Amino acid sequence: MEEAENLIKANAIEEVGELAKLDIFRKVRTGIIEVIYAENKKPEVTLDIIDSFLKKSKFAIVSRYKDEFISLITKKFDNDEFYSVDINKFANILIVKEKTYKFEKKGGKIGIITAGSSDIPVAEEAKVIAESMGCEVITSYDLGIAGIHRLFKPLSEMIKSGIQVIIVCAGMEGTLPGVVAALVDIPVIGVPISSGYGLGEKGLGALTTMLQSCSPGLLVVNIDNGFGAGASAALIANKIAE
Amino acid sequence: MEEAENLIKANAIEEVGELAKLDIFRKVRTGIIEVIYAENKKPEVTLDIIDSFLKKSKFAIVSRYKDEFISLITKKFDNDEFYSVDINKFANILIVKEKTYKFEKKGGKIGIITAGSSDIPVAEEAKVIAESMGCEVITSYDLGIAGIHRLFKPLSEMIKSGIQVIIVCAGMEGTLPGVVAALVDIPVIGVPISSGYGLGEKGLGALTTMLQSCSPGLLVVNIDNGFGAGASAALIANKIAE
Amino acid sequence: MEEAENLIKANAIEEVGELAKLDIFRKVRTGIIEVIYAENKKPEVTLDIIDSFLKKSKFAIVSRYKDEFISLITKKFDNDEFYSVDINKFANILIVKEKTYKFEKKGGKIGIITAGSSDIPVAEEAKVIAESMGCEVITSYDLGIAGIHRLFKPLSEMIKSGIQVIIVCAGMEGTLPGVVAALVDIPVIGVPISSGYGLGEKGLGALTTMLQSCSPGLLVVNIDNGFGAGASAALIANKIAE
Amino acid sequence: MEEAENLIKANAIEEVGELAKLDIFRKVRTGIIEVIYAENKKPEVTLDIIDSFLKKSKFAIVSRYKDEFISLITKKFDNDEFYSVDINKFANILIVKEKTYKFEKKGGKIGIITAGSSDIPVAEEAKVIAESMGCEVITSYDLGIAGIHRLFKPLSEMIKSGIQVIIVCAGMEGTLPGVVAALVDIPVIGVPISSGYGLGEKGLGALTTMLQSCSPGLLVVNIDNGFGAGASAALIANKIAE
Amino acid sequence: MEEAENLIKANAIEEVGELAKLDIFRKVRTGIIEVIYAENKKPEVTLDIIDSFLKKSKFAIVSRYKDEFISLITKKFDNDEFYSVDINKFANILIVKEKTYKFEKKGGKIGIITAGSSDIPVAEEAKVIAESMGCEVITSYDLGIAGIHRLFKPLSEMIKSGIQVIIVCAGMEGTLPGVVAALVDIPVIGVPISSGYGLGEKGLGALTTMLQSCSPGLLVVNIDNGFGAGASAALIANKIAE
Amino acid sequence: MEEAENLIKANAIEEVGELAKLDIFRKVRTGIIEVIYAENKKPEVTLDIIDSFLKKSKFAIVSRYKDEFISLITKKFDNDEFYSVDINKFANILIVKEKTYKFEKKGGKIGIITAGSSDIPVAEEAKVIAESMGCEVITSYDLGIAGIHRLFKPLSEMIKSGIQVIIVCAGMEGTLPGVVAALVDIPVIGVPISSGYGLGEKGLGALTTMLQSCSPGLLVVNIDNGFGAGASAALIANKIAE
Amino acid sequence: MEEAENLIKANAIEEVGELAKLDIFRKVRTGIIEVIYAENKKPEVTLDIIDSFLKKSKFAIVSRYKDEFISLITKKFDNDEFYSVDINKFANILIVKEKTYKFEKKGGKIGIITAGSSDIPVAEEAKVIAESMGCEVITSYDLGIAGIHRLFKPLSEMIKSGIQVIIVCAGMEGTLPGVVAALVDIPVIGVPISSGYGLGEKGLGALTTMLQSCSPGLLVVNIDNGFGAGASAALIANKIAE
Amino acid sequence: MEEAENLIKANAIEEVGELAKLDIFRKVRTGIIEVIYAENKKPEVTLDIIDSFLKKSKFAIVSRYKDEFISLITKKFDNDEFYSVDINKFANILIVKEKTYKFEKKGGKIGIITAGSSDIPVAEEAKVIAESMGCEVITSYDLGIAGIHRLFKPLSEMIKSGIQVIIVCAGMEGTLPGVVAALVDIPVIGVPISSGYGLGEKGLGALTTMLQSCSPGLLVVNIDNGFGAGASAALIANKIAE
Repeated sequence: MEEAENLIKANAIEEVGELAKLDIFRKVRTGIIEVIYAENKKPEVTLDIIDSFLKKSKFAIVSRYKDEFISLITKKFDNDEFYSVDINKFANILIVKEKTYKFEKKGGKIGIITAGSSDIPVAEEAKVIAESMGCEVITSYDLGIAGIHRLFKPLSEMIKSGIQVIIVCAGMEGTLPGVVAALVDIPVIGVPISSGYGLGEKGLGALTTMLQSCSPGLLVVNIDNGFGAGASAALIANKIAE
Repeated sequence: MEEAENLIKANAIEEVGELAKLDIFRKVRTGIIEVIYAENKKPEVTLDIIDSFLKKSKFAIVSRYKDEFISLITKKFDNDEFYSVDINKFANILIVKEKTYKFEKKGGKIGIITAGSSDIPVAEEAKVIAESMGCEVITSYDLGIAGIHRLFKPLSEMIKSGIQVIIVCAGMEGTLPGVVAALVDIPVIGVPISSGYGLGEKGLGALTTMLQSCSPGLLVVNIDNGFGAGASAALIANKIAE
Repeated sequence: MEEAENLIKANAIEEVGELAKLDIFRKVRTGIIEVIYAENKKPEVTLDIIDSFLKKSKFAIVSRYKDEFISLITKKFDNDEFYSVDINKFANILIVKEKTYKFEKKGGKIGIITAGSSDIPVAEEAKVIAESMGCEVITSYDLGIAGIHRLFKPLSEMIKSGIQVIIVCAGMEGTLPGVVAALVDIPVIGVPISSGYGLGEKGLGALTTMLQSCSPGLLVVNIDNGFGAGASAALIANKIAE
Repeated sequence: MEEAENLIKANAIEEVGELAKLDIFRKVRTGIIEVIYAENKKPEVTLDIIDSFLKKSKFAIVSRYKDEFISLITKKFDNDEFYSVDINKFANILIVKEKTYKFEKKGGKIGIITAGSSDIPVAEEAKVIAESMGCEVITSYDLGIAGIHRLFKPLSEMIKSGIQVIIVCAGMEGTLPGVVAALVDIPVIGVPISSGYGLGEKGLGALTTMLQSCSPGLLVVNIDNGFGAGASAALIANKIAE
Repeated sequence: MEEAENLIKANAIEEVGELAKLDIFRKVRTGIIEVIYAENKKPEVTLDIIDSFLKKSKFAIVSRYKDEFISLITKKFDNDEFYSVDINKFANILIVKEKTYKFEKKGGKIGIITAGSSDIPVAEEAKVIAESMGCEVITSYDLGIAGIHRLFKPLSEMIKSGIQVIIVCAGMEGTLPGVVAALVDIPVIGVPISSGYGLGEKGLGALTTMLQSCSPGLLVVNIDNGFGAGASAALIANKIAE
Repeated sequence: MEEAENLIKANAIEEVGELAKLDIFRKVRTGIIEVIYAENKKPEVTLDIIDSFLKKSKFAIVSRYKDEFISLITKKFDNDEFYSVDINKFANILIVKEKTYKFEKKGGKIGIITAGSSDIPVAEEAKVIAESMGCEVITSYDLGIAGIHRLFKPLSEMIKSGIQVIIVCAGMEGTLPGVVAALVDIPVIGVPISSGYGLGEKGLGALTTMLQSCSPGLLVVNIDNGFGAGASAALIANKIAE
Repeated sequence: MEEAENLIKANAIEEVGELAKLDIFRKVRTGIIEVIYAENKKPEVTLDIIDSFLKKSKFAIVSRYKDEFISLITKKFDNDEFYSVDINKFANILIVKEKTYKFEKKGGKIGIITAGSSDIPVAEEAKVIAESMGCEVITSYDLGIAGIHRLFKPLSEMIKSGIQVIIVCAGMEGTLPGVVAALVDIPVIGVPISSGYGLGEKGLGALTTMLQSCSPGLLVVNIDNGFGAGASAALIANKIAE
Repeated sequence: MEEAENLIKANAIEEVGELAKLDIFRKVRTGIIEVIYAENKKPEVTLDIIDSFLKKSKFAIVSRYKDEFISLITKKFDNDEFYSVDINKFANILIVKEKTYKFEKKGGKIGIITAGSSDIPVAEEAKVIAESMGCEVITSYDLGIAGIHRLFKPLSEMIKSGIQVIIVCAGMEGTLPGVVAALVDIPVIGVPISSGYGLGEKGLGALTTMLQSCSPGLLVVNIDNGFGAGASAALIANKIAE
């Protein structure tokens, strides 16, 4: 009797599960890429997951790998017949893909701006994700020398070239995204960077500034979340491009 | 000599100021509406600002007014020849506008979903803003009775009707925006609502959940920021509609 | 074409929704009661929701009502032929139910202990919920006079009477749940109460103490969450009683 | 005179102490296992405590040992006539026990579910504790690849097999325990995992989500507290099995 | 059988309880006064507790009463044959006692110093408690006008008069207790007052300063905890006086 | 003997006290005004303190009075022969002074800028303090309508008129002080205003932004601390003017 | 003229300074020991400070030294004619003193109790400080195995032996100091230990519990502040012993 | 058409950018030095930036370099004909400059005071910045041995020598800046140092104390922000010296 009841309950759960699987197709439809987040994974586990990805897809993206992982992956795919590895050392992100595979262009065009050199890894993460979702990406990274005025020229050029969305990465007081949102008429995604110190350290100050910003066109993701910023931006840009 | 120097410096600042004024035109270009935030203003000050708005524009929007303000504004514009007042009591937002004025349709179509009855004021604020920026808005507000399953039907209907962006308001644990972002392939804007209690009270729990969310298509604004959500959503939706 | 695609997507969402509705039956199966949380609702809205509850159920429970609500509900159901109202003024919780209706006994037996008089409202909320889920509840509320030693006698009597779960409410430093968990061999649910002051005020100190507790049999709910504690305790107690 | 008074006071304390010793028998009665928490202990101290455990018990459990400890303990018990060492490298937990000793089965049956690969160490800790308290444990660990839909099948199978309690480990936004609690009619214990980043990092986001959850059957332990979750779950499951 | 087991367990708990009752005598021995904390109690409940106190003791102390309580208590004990009421309006603390009763002098002598007028209620609370525990109390309250230099004279006089302990109340940056502890050679108890603003508001700044203080003779109680400070000071002062 | 020792100790403290009194003259020398902070004081106490001020000085300044205080003070000094009362209703600050008394001009010239209407009370507090310390003050308060561009013109005029220090009040994301500090070559004092909402509410966001600011000429005071900003600015401006 | 004024100001400061030097004698009078806090000092600097101490005192105490420091100090004083080094490896505290020097007994007697093995370093720090201030110290350290009941026996023996103050170190939920304060009639100093995890980690939970404690005889120092606890306890104990 | 619009928008942005470049000249005018913040930069990048600095300026300042950087920079400029390197190992700050270049004296005179040895690196950073902006700097660093009284003498001497601003660095409870601000009549800049522990650790306690300080002449920068303190102090001191 109880067993019968358990079976009924279990069936209901499974049915929900079946439908939930539709979710997996959505990733294909929307073009949001699944990424292997390697930060807390052992290298071998990551390699296994790459394998299982390559069985059902033409490429696999690995983010936040530890530096030691490079030699492992290089050894494995060096001289490989089918696959090549694209390594982005700034962002600790890499793509294993069929040598002939090219990400399909979806028409989206995204600008990425950073205010300091510690913002670059996160910005590059966003870039790789957006590109793998079919977007063209134009970046302007300050090298950590001077002030805000150096960003106007590239911002102007981005607008000229027709970008549909801008990602702005900023640590410390994190005001740049609000400034940009007040100058342009396209959606701006602010990415707080974990580079502040003292009160508001580890990006909390930047996150707070962006959430408090009076520029209404500004949307925010979590601290250092380059992946989320890149994926959202690509989603919007591709929709506008359609 | 010092005075001369001061003059030079002052000129430089003014020049920047001149250009900064371009900013004011941007509001017209982008269609982001200026709103009179009445929360900490004395009623007479708010009335004065409404007047100065109506001199340069066909309408004025007042948000977060105190309940006492209603009688004041009604008295002033009751039987007015030119202006009428649209009052949204849920959101404490009102629009004074020329009787014949209609917000120009820009083609954007936005869905707004809430999980509980305390989310409605913020949702309505987003709605009024988005409408005044030329968007059509479809809402689905739960009345605080049952579970998540009640939202699938209206969500499905929203998608059918061709919305381009969804705003999801949620307090407490704030999981609904992430769930919606995992079901649809259009941008989702999460609005944390200040309704939680205990650890994570006043919306902090909901904000945290949304920022931590694994659904990459989810973008976030600050707690109770219906205005920002509405403006951003309208900006994106109108761009896609173009 | 795009419309067709939208229809397909919408269908998928609806299908998930259909299954999600199973969720509503679960409430019946598990005996977890739906409660109308009135804190942020306007009185008329609450009355409407009561009506819609009574259409599909023999009772409706309203928690956290404002004191003003009492006169409203009394007026409405006073001299009512079918329904009576049970009001628990300590917990600001009330039950509207068919006069002849009695909550079915499920066999669960729960003890509720408090350490101070400000814990009583939350304890009573837990009690009403557990009773309406078919449990017998034994309470021991300290009147705020003396020390921990006054709780041993009633604790002993609870154990003698065969309770299966104990709920312990405590504010301030919140040590009582850990002490009880170290004395009994049945599950203990700690409810932090928002009564502390200074560092750790508003229940944060009590919550922290319970989460840090070295007594492994202790489980925790959020601050002042009498409803959650009562529902969980009843779920466990009824299962053990089966 | 003062000395006499001191003696009287001291006696009173000792009497309380005598009774408090009853507490030690409770551990045997309830089957909650004492565990040697090695995190901040020097290896030699841990070895000494193991020895003193083995004098009064047939086994000793060591949790959160440093990796260096393995070689030490292996050297000591390698080729030992009486004792063997079971090492769980995922959870950094090990059991030294008489070779012939088997934990007595108490009838409890527990499911453990994780959402990501960084949750596994804590989940395994819970598993070892629950098993050593006489429970059967069924686990379903996601390998960090895909989405929530992968959990429905194993959840369904757990319910079919008759588990009485589910432990759900989740980091980041920590929504999985609430989702599971809304699908099943047995008690759910949520374990926040210290894997989030940015706002709500180190598990605070997951803890907040679980405490704010609207699913009333959900109970919570502190961040990464696999021991507490395992012990509580075993306590409840064994009681239900009785 | 199970019932028998329950009885045994219950007995064990009761035995602990019996001994724990010894605790109640301790209050008599140590001279720490039980106080009725009225903040969250309904007036009638407080009156009931006063009655039960007066049955076993010659006096009852009520702290943190609401202002409305005064008329109630005055009405009740006005013209009473046996009892009189001493009201301390600064501290919202009152003592109902037999008209002829006098707190026995224990020899302790305590100084209380405040830095601002908002510290006085807490200081007075400490004073009433210490006096009712048999101590003489010398106070020096600044009226909120000038600087630290005004405290040297009374501090000097306190030392001359032979006080054994000093209580120092301070809000804002809370440095006074550390300064005093660096000038005297007797124990100093710092009481943070909830009067700060901005970062460190509600006494958190003062508490932090006192805990970080480099003056090793400084001990701390929680924010606004005049009762704890007074009781601890009296305990120490009376011991030294012995 | 012990008494003798106490006397010696007391003398030492008194001697320190004597010197500390020098501190009181400093206030005269530096021109920093003592202000009666009325927020937590009873009206009568405030009146008493005013009296004692007027005995040794030609004026008394009262800040943060409650609105009720106005009628009291007006009644007292209305038609007074010697004293008049200047009331600043924006800042809830008032000055009672000899009718003929004028604050001596020290040459300092200060600019005060605000970004929103909720910043005005704090700005006015700073203004009154700076004026009473002998400075000329030029203010530019935005009425809460438009953007940053409206501040360039007045800023330019301030520089032209030769101000030596600028105070900038800002709530919400608090970026204005950093922007001003990047445009001018005189010291800027940022005052965070307690007007934000959600994450960083009550001025914490603005404070964090100012402390994180990359503009090195920016100095900060606590949230809403108009008094401190005004006094520091006046101190610096007068020194430069010398 | 300005120079003259500067001289006058400087003199005033120096005079205060002269008196402030009295402070240095206080250390001798009160018997509070100056300790060289080595945590952030370079080894050579620490050695220099030891030298300067030994010129004016018969001993020098170094706390929180890094492990590397041991070889340095041993090398220096090995075979030294006059000085010997006492090293306490648990507490990373050491005393260099004249071989014949003995700390004068002042009569104070202190008990120190810990709840877990990670509390021992802090407890030992308190012990060394108290001993060097002339107190006898009795310790009871749990080895991290079992429960609270193991502390009653040694607590009873401490009371029998006539201790005047108890220091109780506790991490995690930090309840032990409150329990002890409820059992004894002598002052109790609680030392929160930085050993918790999750919510309330790094000792914050323990600190909160102690500050919230309902046991009025409990006084608190900052997290891990063994030095402050030892010094305060010795100050009180010696005073009582007098 | 859209392209034309983009061009117009882009032009507007560029125009703002042109004016913003004025900002770069400001650095020359005000004498605030641009510094290369090396903390998160790769050594080669830092070397490149030094080169680009030396092309437009006679010197380059590098702050917060990693220790490894020293050998790199020494190797590069060792035996260089034109440039020499001044290394400040306390502050990890270095200056590469033309051998013959001397920072122009602007007349400012600044005092820097520290309370403990861990404050020295930040104090030295402030010193190097202020010197490179043309100020003379007098420092008084306590070596971590004794108390506050040791600071009066050097403070007095600083005042005698005519300093215009004082920087006071303090960690732990951070009271020193407030004490100094109460003794002198010149502006005081407080720098919280990240040296506290327990509640208020990492400088938060010191920052809070300084912001809460009742000494109105005290201005604050972020934790460990020696650069900001030095730059602000030099700006003010040079202005006064003019």
